Amino acid sequence: MKIRDIGEQGLLERLQRFCPPGMVGDDAAVLATTPGRSLVVTTDVLVDKVHFSDRTTAPEDAGWRAAAANLSDLAAMGASPLGITVGLGVPSDLSVNWVEQLYQGLTACLQQYDTSIVGGDICRSPVITVAITAFGEASPNRLIRRSVAQLGDAIVVTGVHGAARAGLELLLHPELGQHLSDGDRMSLIQAHQRPKPRLDVLPVLWDILDSQSKIQNPKSKIQVAGMDSSDGLADAIVQICRCSGVGAFIERSKITIPPALSQLISPEQALNWALYGGEDFELVLCLPPEKAQPLVERLGNGAAIVGAIAPRARYANATSSEILLVDSSRVYPDEHLTLTQGFQHF
Amino acid sequence: MKIRDIGEQGLLERLQRFCPPGMVGDDAAVLATTPGRSLVVTTDVLVDKVHFSDRTTAPEDAGWRAAAANLSDLAAMGASPLGITVGLGVPSDLSVNWVEQLYQGLTACLQQYDTSIVGGDICRSPVITVAITAFGEASPNRLIRRSVAQLGDAIVVTGVHGAARAGLELLLHPELGQHLSDGDRMSLIQAHQRPKPRLDVLPVLWDILDSQSKIQNPKSKIQVAGMDSSDGLADAIVQICRCSGVGAFIERSKITIPPALSQLISPEQALNWALYGGEDFELVLCLPPEKAQPLVERLGNGAAIVGAIAPRARYANATSSEILLVDSSRVYPDEHLTLTQGFQHF
Repeated sequence: MKIRDIGEQGLLERLQRFCPPGMVGDDAAVLATTPGRSLVVTTDVLVDKVHFSDRTTAPEDAGWRAAAANLSDLAAMGASPLGITVGLGVPSDLSVNWVEQLYQGLTACLQQYDTSIVGGDICRSPVITVAITAFGEASPNRLIRRSVAQLGDAIVVTGVHGAARAGLELLLHPELGQHLSDGDRMSLIQAHQRPKPRLDVLPVLWDILDSQSKIQNPKSKIQVAGMDSSDGLADAIVQICRCSGVGAFIERSKITIPPALSQLISPEQALNWALYGGEDFELVLCLPPEKAQPLVERLGNGAAIVGAIAPRARYANATSSEILLVDSSRVYPDEHLTLTQGFQHF
Repeated sequence: MKIRDIGEQGLLERLQRFCPPGMVGDDAAVLATTPGRSLVVTTDVLVDKVHFSDRTTAPEDAGWRAAAANLSDLAAMGASPLGITVGLGVPSDLSVNWVEQLYQGLTACLQQYDTSIVGGDICRSPVITVAITAFGEASPNRLIRRSVAQLGDAIVVTGVHGAARAGLELLLHPELGQHLSDGDRMSLIQAHQRPKPRLDVLPVLWDILDSQSKIQNPKSKIQVAGMDSSDGLADAIVQICRCSGVGAFIERSKITIPPALSQLISPEQALNWALYGGEDFELVLCLPPEKAQPLVERLGNGAAIVGAIAPRARYANATSSEILLVDSSRVYPDEHLTLTQGFQHF
């Protein structure tokens, strides 16, 4: 049996039994260290031609994106970064300049979030490979997990979706962007090349949770469920619902899409990129509506409540997900979110 | 300029400026987290055909060795393991069985030290790549660092050297071992395939440091310098001396070598394997002689005081290291340790 026969999910399931129960499933692993603090660890392996390519990604951008992806995993867990390690496999005929530019991109991103490269390893490899491990700290009662979404929670996106995919298309097919303003074109390309992990959301979120808790029973601890949308908005919603054993409905008109996309593609295509394009690195958070509303107001910039967590049975059937995409204006029929359009690693 | 033009050391020096000062140089990075605890992090990238090969290494052994190397880095810092993450790049036509055996080897080693795989990432890659990050915890005043060796410190090895290299040779050239007993042959091969990180040394070391401090000025904190001998015993001694700005002399007859090597190779060749063979994963520790003596007595099994830290100027010259290999029986002339026989990554 080859890996391609069982795919990424099949392999993950087989490897899970080598890990302690409950360790796999979130954007990062959580370890209790000293009382009151949790160590949060996440790791990513990026391979030349699979995850980046000189055609669309300068080494500086590959570095930025690698750092951003790992910091985004920390943000998705509610953790503040402590540092990253970089394991590098490189062919010996690679230019030193390429490696330095990669590190420039890594540190440029890390500096935005007051963190740094704290260690690493270099070795020879026939293919450029960048393995990054990021670790951060969180308060155990503020961990954001995929498995704790509750019925009635509002589903929040912290910004627009579809921009990173649009940026990639503009790099691959520059002619597509001939009707865009320079500003719009650059902003979409930046969304692909220099995504921003949403660590900035956390202090706003904690502030809203803290201030709200004064006017209610202080014992009723609010758990925030969530993950990042790096593999696509649809994927994030499906994963959260699966891990939490719930369903959801999403109002299609509420999904925030960069306005410039209307000059590029049809509304249907734009929604498709928003749901399945991936790499937008926003957070998808589930929390009570009375907390979600002030959160999206304070975040602005495309933050929105896009739907709500619903009972599972309501939409379940054997062949599709538990998530219904609805159109309150009744132009489009209801449809189930699917993951078949997502990125397959094998 | 290509990487091969400047080599691993040259590349490391260039990348060092992307890291905070003082971060690079030890077996692992140290981060202050909560007061009184340090987070210790180390990372390794292993590449098929460079670090392991189906010819000498079954996937289970590759897994064991990868885990052992990282745990050894933690031991070399004085840290107890918290867990490891595994980033895996694999071709899609690799057998699932190969990956499962790798994980079996990883967890078999980790279980010996009460630790586990806590997270990871899998992706497609044309070449099998295993990126491991291990993290552990240490008390800040018990960190073992390369840079704190003191004049007069005894240099301790925690066990024999040369066994792993002998095991590799026996795998590559089985005919070499025709005069060995089965037990000796297996034990040398095991030293290569299933090296043991010396985390067991730490409690003994702390116990000796604690008990000794009662009969002396409690304010005189003893700092232990050290690293592991994964890149060779000679390399470890040279690195410690360089980082500490000191020299050393090593008594060649004190270097402990597996007795079976005398049936395999000449004494000169055995010493060469002990100094430059690498992958023995012992600890090389520098500490005051009155602590070193009880340490080697309690460890046994080849633990020995092999030399002492000496002033740098005494042996320094422009073309060789600061470390002199001496023979108290005067059969061999004094010679300087060299690193040119060590493993070159590029």
